[in-house]
Amino acid sequence: MQVTIIGIGLIGGSMALALKDKGIVTKIFAVDQNPAHGQLALELGIADEVADLDSALAQSDLVVLSIPVDAAAKLLPEIMSKVSSQVVFDVSSTKKVICDTALHCENAGRFVASHPMWGTEFHGPQAAQKGAFAHKAAVICHKERSDADAVAMVEKIYLALGMHLLYMDAAAHDVHAAYISHISHVSSFALANTVLEKEKEDDKIFEMASGGFESSVRLAKSNAAMWVPIFIQNKENLLDVLNEHISQLRKFKSCLEKENYTYLAELIENANTIKRILK
Amino acid sequence: MQVTIIGIGLIGGSMALALKDKGIVTKIFAVDQNPAHGQLALELGIADEVADLDSALAQSDLVVLSIPVDAAAKLLPEIMSKVSSQVVFDVSSTKKVICDTALHCENAGRFVASHPMWGTEFHGPQAAQKGAFAHKAAVICHKERSDADAVAMVEKIYLALGMHLLYMDAAAHDVHAAYISHISHVSSFALANTVLEKEKEDDKIFEMASGGFESSVRLAKSNAAMWVPIFIQNKENLLDVLNEHISQLRKFKSCLEKENYTYLAELIENANTIKRILK
Repeated sequence: MQVTIIGIGLIGGSMALALKDKGIVTKIFAVDQNPAHGQLALELGIADEVADLDSALAQSDLVVLSIPVDAAAKLLPEIMSKVSSQVVFDVSSTKKVICDTALHCENAGRFVASHPMWGTEFHGPQAAQKGAFAHKAAVICHKERSDADAVAMVEKIYLALGMHLLYMDAAAHDVHAAYISHISHVSSFALANTVLEKEKEDDKIFEMASGGFESSVRLAKSNAAMWVPIFIQNKENLLDVLNEHISQLRKFKSCLEKENYTYLAELIENANTIKRILK
Repeated sequence: MQVTIIGIGLIGGSMALALKDKGIVTKIFAVDQNPAHGQLALELGIADEVADLDSALAQSDLVVLSIPVDAAAKLLPEIMSKVSSQVVFDVSSTKKVICDTALHCENAGRFVASHPMWGTEFHGPQAAQKGAFAHKAAVICHKERSDADAVAMVEKIYLALGMHLLYMDAAAHDVHAAYISHISHVSSFALANTVLEKEKEDDKIFEMASGGFESSVRLAKSNAAMWVPIFIQNKENLLDVLNEHISQLRKFKSCLEKENYTYLAELIENANTIKRILK
């Protein structure tokens, strides 16, 4: 099978490596608006050929759309107008906008909306990792809108990568993503800015930083070009969870101000029940 | 050298393993109010003998005080009244209360106030790790209040463990700890509670959780018995940073509400400068 990866960065590059590693592909075409990324993907052995969109599509059985969510929604109609039997799937972190867009595309049955739940705070082909995706969830949205053979191909690929499949509609996906991914990024960005603000008056504030700080702030390295469009597309859900999160933080604040340490312990013990989810 | 570890849990147990690993000790006495912890420490090879406080002190050259910060401040006067030439150091996450307490202890020169910047979200002897502490900072507070030979011994131990030394007064330590450790814990507790609250109406909310969620929420597993006393002792500093953090989160909220995406990108790009600190 020959595959076109549109956007050969963190996710697209890791997908290319995984598809090669599992012996699923014979050739990978990289399509990227950044020539340096295409060149780097060749040098790193992630892609076999850099090509323009038309040439790559004509030679491929499968197309992976792995660019920022605003660019993905914008490019999808052009891609779908140029496919015939090929299968196209996206990996976008928001699903409502791209699924709505797909409804009005030509050959819409060849498109499968998906979101593999893996990523890091880095970007570009140099951030691509072997062994990514394994043991994580892959979400497929509105499978009823896609051709059965197209869904079957995408399911087979995610399973081959060691992922387990979840099915939901785009609206449900975007609510879930706001709670278990997008808010974690906002929280980390805001935590970084909190300490960076303090650094202006105390330039040694980071000297003691250790594992706990690193863990809770590492996502703050994530880049704006990817995350601003996600936050825009998922604005309403993100505002809901952000309001709830601020409200939860205010409970800690109130406990401290009122010296209500019994309730403080209860808040912590409630948070501890996250051990059900995080081993 | 024979060493008494008072509180043979995550930190005390890891300290015992590190002291053994570096060949610094010949025998470790565990003093713990929980008999099961003492027994487990023996079984895990962390401690060589479980003893009562008086017996352990009488046979030791060095005493490590690694119990919750409220218990540490309460027990310190009794310990110091029983030492002669022994060196006692604590590992508490807050330093103002214990340093103030030490001022009024007998043999106060034998006490060294310190905080090795390492930990995990787990607790008890079963959480003790080999190789802990290496490449992290160890803070020593008010070294001028301790006997020179006592400080020298503690410095030598931390350096042998692969740590680098920082010196500051207790008040400065507590401000720094609020910003680079305590707020990360409050944030994680509140994030966990945010999603757990949502789970009450949507029981599949955690299905998509992946590395980003785990990273930003793992500290929420930390136990109340350790953290409530820390938050109490560092209440004023923690309230300052909590107010700043809520204010930083409100900036993200305002950007979304007002659709000010230029400023949203600027907030993220500012947060990205944390790469100076976190590689």
